Amino acid sequence: MSTQLFSYERLFDFTRKVFESMGCPEEQATSATQVLLSADLRGVDSHGVARLSGYVRLWEAKRVNATPDIKVIHETPSTAVVDGDSGLGLVVAPVAMDIAIQKAKEVGTGWVSVQNSNHYGIAAAHAMKALVHDMIGISMTNASPLVAPTFSTAKMLGTNPICVAAPAGSQPPFVMDMATTTAANGKLEILQRKNQEAPLGWVQDAEGNPTTDANILKKGGALLPLGGDREHGSHKGYALGAMVDIFSALLSGANYAPWVPPFPAYVPMPARQPGKGIGHFFGAMRIDAFRSVEEYKRDMDDWISGFRNARTLPGHEKVLIPGDPEREMEELRKKEGIPLLDAVVTDLKQLAERFDLSLSTA
Amino acid sequence: MSTQLFSYERLFDFTRKVFESMGCPEEQATSATQVLLSADLRGVDSHGVARLSGYVRLWEAKRVNATPDIKVIHETPSTAVVDGDSGLGLVVAPVAMDIAIQKAKEVGTGWVSVQNSNHYGIAAAHAMKALVHDMIGISMTNASPLVAPTFSTAKMLGTNPICVAAPAGSQPPFVMDMATTTAANGKLEILQRKNQEAPLGWVQDAEGNPTTDANILKKGGALLPLGGDREHGSHKGYALGAMVDIFSALLSGANYAPWVPPFPAYVPMPARQPGKGIGHFFGAMRIDAFRSVEEYKRDMDDWISGFRNARTLPGHEKVLIPGDPEREMEELRKKEGIPLLDAVVTDLKQLAERFDLSLSTA
Repeated sequence: MSTQLFSYERLFDFTRKVFESMGCPEEQATSATQVLLSADLRGVDSHGVARLSGYVRLWEAKRVNATPDIKVIHETPSTAVVDGDSGLGLVVAPVAMDIAIQKAKEVGTGWVSVQNSNHYGIAAAHAMKALVHDMIGISMTNASPLVAPTFSTAKMLGTNPICVAAPAGSQPPFVMDMATTTAANGKLEILQRKNQEAPLGWVQDAEGNPTTDANILKKGGALLPLGGDREHGSHKGYALGAMVDIFSALLSGANYAPWVPPFPAYVPMPARQPGKGIGHFFGAMRIDAFRSVEEYKRDMDDWISGFRNARTLPGHEKVLIPGDPEREMEELRKKEGIPLLDAVVTDLKQLAERFDLSLSTA
Repeated sequence: MSTQLFSYERLFDFTRKVFESMGCPEEQATSATQVLLSADLRGVDSHGVARLSGYVRLWEAKRVNATPDIKVIHETPSTAVVDGDSGLGLVVAPVAMDIAIQKAKEVGTGWVSVQNSNHYGIAAAHAMKALVHDMIGISMTNASPLVAPTFSTAKMLGTNPICVAAPAGSQPPFVMDMATTTAANGKLEILQRKNQEAPLGWVQDAEGNPTTDANILKKGGALLPLGGDREHGSHKGYALGAMVDIFSALLSGANYAPWVPPFPAYVPMPARQPGKGIGHFFGAMRIDAFRSVEEYKRDMDDWISGFRNARTLPGHEKVLIPGDPEREMEELRKKEGIPLLDAVVTDLKQLAERFDLSLSTA
């Protein structure tokens, strides 16, 4: 599949204008663009501008409010619940994460659960905001149901990702950002486009049998929790996905389990809505609420270099630290540009026409 | 392998007396016994009285202090770092968890990182203390190195378990308690005793090749992170285990990575000790710091019954909720007694002799 290169700046400018054309206030359009494009920079192509037209369609279907009144509806010194007023998750999440950071400044840690939001891009975009404050950042979200629990054939959970970002000293930060499934849905979509089979352990068919059919989700199949099957710990992946749902939706009053609203605007909303919108959960922990930042950073650098220099399997040069591949991709793409698939470029050109904008690669 | 049945009360009385014989103050001996026996009740036989002689040997080797001065050495309104003074983890952890709960009462959530401790039994014993307070409880600990990161042949992490316990209303609570490996070491030990092979994906040999040899850890092999291999998400299990290490040891000043002290007293201490003892991490979040307890419990009951009644795979009656098997085992064993393997009974009888105690099954 052929691609075209776009500079980060051009893509940023274009995306911001699309959000502004939807009616987003300038500051929110900028914030949403930062979040969305952080996915393209970090190589998580499924969650970047490839989804921009999807967000526009949600707005057209009146499932997204372009001028939300984002409010704290309950709080204590270390916690808050935020009502996103049906805003873009790309806009609501940064506000909620900032509240978590502010509370951590005041009482050591801050924890914010969010209701009435929408898809928030990549989890890392939010958790990593804590790093410059010498805090550990945590971000998770529920999502529409694609995953069957262990022993089930029903799609009951989203891929419910978790990100934990921890600062280091002279080493780059530790950034784990993972779907709680064997493989993220974006990985499956890549195989679909390439007409390739999925490894066993990624998906099951409608009857719960193992399958390598990458298109099985359209035929009643489901993604499998991290672990794949019971013998390999799928009950652990299921429990982690469930934990994300509890923190994001049960603590906030958002929709949960199979009733989380879908991302594609053409998919009807679930008939039942036990809560409001999609739920997220954010955390910030000040390092110096536990220990001197200097001592922590010294040990964290030692920890990281210990792992990076651990004995490797044949054919592998070094052991990776969570976040390494995405950071290296970000450095590369900031310099050389972001390659977009032709299908994504066509999609963006349609948006350009729709909103009377221009899209150039330079 | 044959077993003998012991009533919970008899086993409790005996275990408490063993801890008192080591010099533990009465209250601490009782607290340690509660934690240790919760493993036997819940069916986690690897972490219960089967380990009692191991704790005694650590005390004999002067690696455990029976009369620790457990102290908060740093704190903010929502956080604390506790120095366990080389006490039994079974004693230190309940103190630390109580501090987390107390802080949650005051500011909504409480987070406690612990240094200078020892093995703390099952993670669930501590996290579940939050439930009666209508709080979510979190518990994790690092442990001596048995696990190789993705692409590595070096044992760099412990099985580093995570427990999250969330209360419900009329339904029993959600209790996830998982090693961050494909299979816990206790599961591997069961196969060793039965002389059976391990499923592929649980362990690798010294060169990093897949193997089914359940004794491979004694030959330079390693346990694998949850996921098993890169294609099935082992980098996620590795990241989760790393997160536990960071929260438990990097935030507290405990030993980390391959330098965490071993449980068997005959294994020499690591030559390098970058921190103090073993590290734990505890959290408590008050439900009503986010939302009314009633609304939360109503939704949590709905969530649980939704999963329990989801469509099952052929041959499975119901979908399990994390914590179901352990709770059912606890109900059974409280009524019918705790079966101990002959080898464990022999071990306890030696302890009885050593401390001039009596051990009866009635």
